[in-house]
Amino acid sequence: MDILPQIAALRARLKSETAVVFVPTMGNLHAGHLALMRQARAHGNCVVASIFVNRLQFAPHEDFNTYPRTFEADCDKLRSVGVDALFAPDEKELYPEPQAFTVEPPALGNLLEGEFRPGFFRGVATVVLKLFNIVQPQTAVFGKKDYQQLMIVRHMVRQLALPITIIAGDTARAEDGLALSSRNGYLSPAERDEATRLYRTLGELGREIRSGCTDFAALEADAMKKLVNNQWKPDYVAVRKQADLQLPSANDHSLVVLAAAWLGKTRLIDNLEVAK
Amino acid sequence: MDILPQIAALRARLKSETAVVFVPTMGNLHAGHLALMRQARAHGNCVVASIFVNRLQFAPHEDFNTYPRTFEADCDKLRSVGVDALFAPDEKELYPEPQAFTVEPPALGNLLEGEFRPGFFRGVATVVLKLFNIVQPQTAVFGKKDYQQLMIVRHMVRQLALPITIIAGDTARAEDGLALSSRNGYLSPAERDEATRLYRTLGELGREIRSGCTDFAALEADAMKKLVNNQWKPDYVAVRKQADLQLPSANDHSLVVLAAAWLGKTRLIDNLEVAK
Repeated sequence: MDILPQIAALRARLKSETAVVFVPTMGNLHAGHLALMRQARAHGNCVVASIFVNRLQFAPHEDFNTYPRTFEADCDKLRSVGVDALFAPDEKELYPEPQAFTVEPPALGNLLEGEFRPGFFRGVATVVLKLFNIVQPQTAVFGKKDYQQLMIVRHMVRQLALPITIIAGDTARAEDGLALSSRNGYLSPAERDEATRLYRTLGELGREIRSGCTDFAALEADAMKKLVNNQWKPDYVAVRKQADLQLPSANDHSLVVLAAAWLGKTRLIDNLEVAK
Repeated sequence: MDILPQIAALRARLKSETAVVFVPTMGNLHAGHLALMRQARAHGNCVVASIFVNRLQFAPHEDFNTYPRTFEADCDKLRSVGVDALFAPDEKELYPEPQAFTVEPPALGNLLEGEFRPGFFRGVATVVLKLFNIVQPQTAVFGKKDYQQLMIVRHMVRQLALPITIIAGDTARAEDGLALSSRNGYLSPAERDEATRLYRTLGELGREIRSGCTDFAALEADAMKKLVNNQWKPDYVAVRKQADLQLPSANDHSLVVLAAAWLGKTRLIDNLEVAK
């Protein structure tokens, strides 16, 4: 695997490649990321990963400084799944000057995650566009774990006429159901046990919907209450339409339940697609 | 010349090209545009022009609806200078849905033109990025007539890591000095005679600077007064640093004088680089 910290060197490496598949990450890789890398292989003959903890998408009070950085272990993992090239810029390479041009997402970027993390999707859209311009892949893979991010990236690609196909990767889970996340590493052993409640709660909510309940507000409130009763501080539990993350009506069939909640000092997100 | 109204057809046409030079326009082409096309030829072996009147960069009260559209004549002119391909999308092709993702320019976008045309540079940056993503040129040519636009496009290319070299084209002028512009067509014969005052005034201001005057504010005020005294309504006359369009100090040497002013119902802009 070629490890390339410089934009120019990466471009030189990729110059003659005709089917580049790109998987951007913030590092601290787990089995979920590696599944995306394996999935990428099916869509091209040159798999490029990136590792960059993007300051732009963290609010000042968030965990940019403490976000886990495990570069050597990450490289070993990427090699083990046959990634061809790793773009690993430092901050000076990607932001040699303050980032004054930004990509402004539409209103969808202010809902759900965007409501609780103001500026988050502006930071995501801006860095993803910049990485796309650097790597110039034909295909890119994003995990469904960050469901709203996946939607926003897809929307951006369409609206900015980027010649890139976006592939969605399923969320990888621990055996007990917890969605794999770099932030799981922040959890104490007791919190790690409790953490499974988030996905279980989504699952229960999904079963209610499939069994015919259409009072989504009541289902959301009930799920929030279950979390609160177990010492969680939920930001939101939301039943939405898969197509645009807007509020569903009773006869919408492709739904998704999304949740974000704090367990101690760790903020976890998860989601579950529900087809009625 | 291949005339391609569809993104997909344009991409197919350019697929095997390795040195595409792109010159975006809003049509109603004059000798200034054609000079850019000839200049483009020196930078690649496939010259692509575009014609698209971009609604996004017009404020509601501006001249989007009346902006001159002369497609057949434009095609003849482009053929006459050997342009290889013309991308000429209609509005549905470029904006099939409302443009919800925008490129937000930095503070520079709120000065000068941006102050008098709020949202203008957001509209410019967004459509230029989109056109770049569609055409994927190695090089693009922008005229110095729109000096601030040229700077913003260069800044965007650098900040978004677009793999495109931006070439500046000199402003083409009528024999009497008036900068060529599609909007000159709005002028009455009497206004057309008077219009040369704008460039003459910039020239006089430039001579004052070269002769050692550093009271830029007084020079600006004096120039504004000359215009006002001759029935112009100037938006601004501004002496700025070439590098960043910020206010110069007495020991800055690479300056530019920029002006925008209304003559009757026509808004004209012009500028003059001044090296001390």
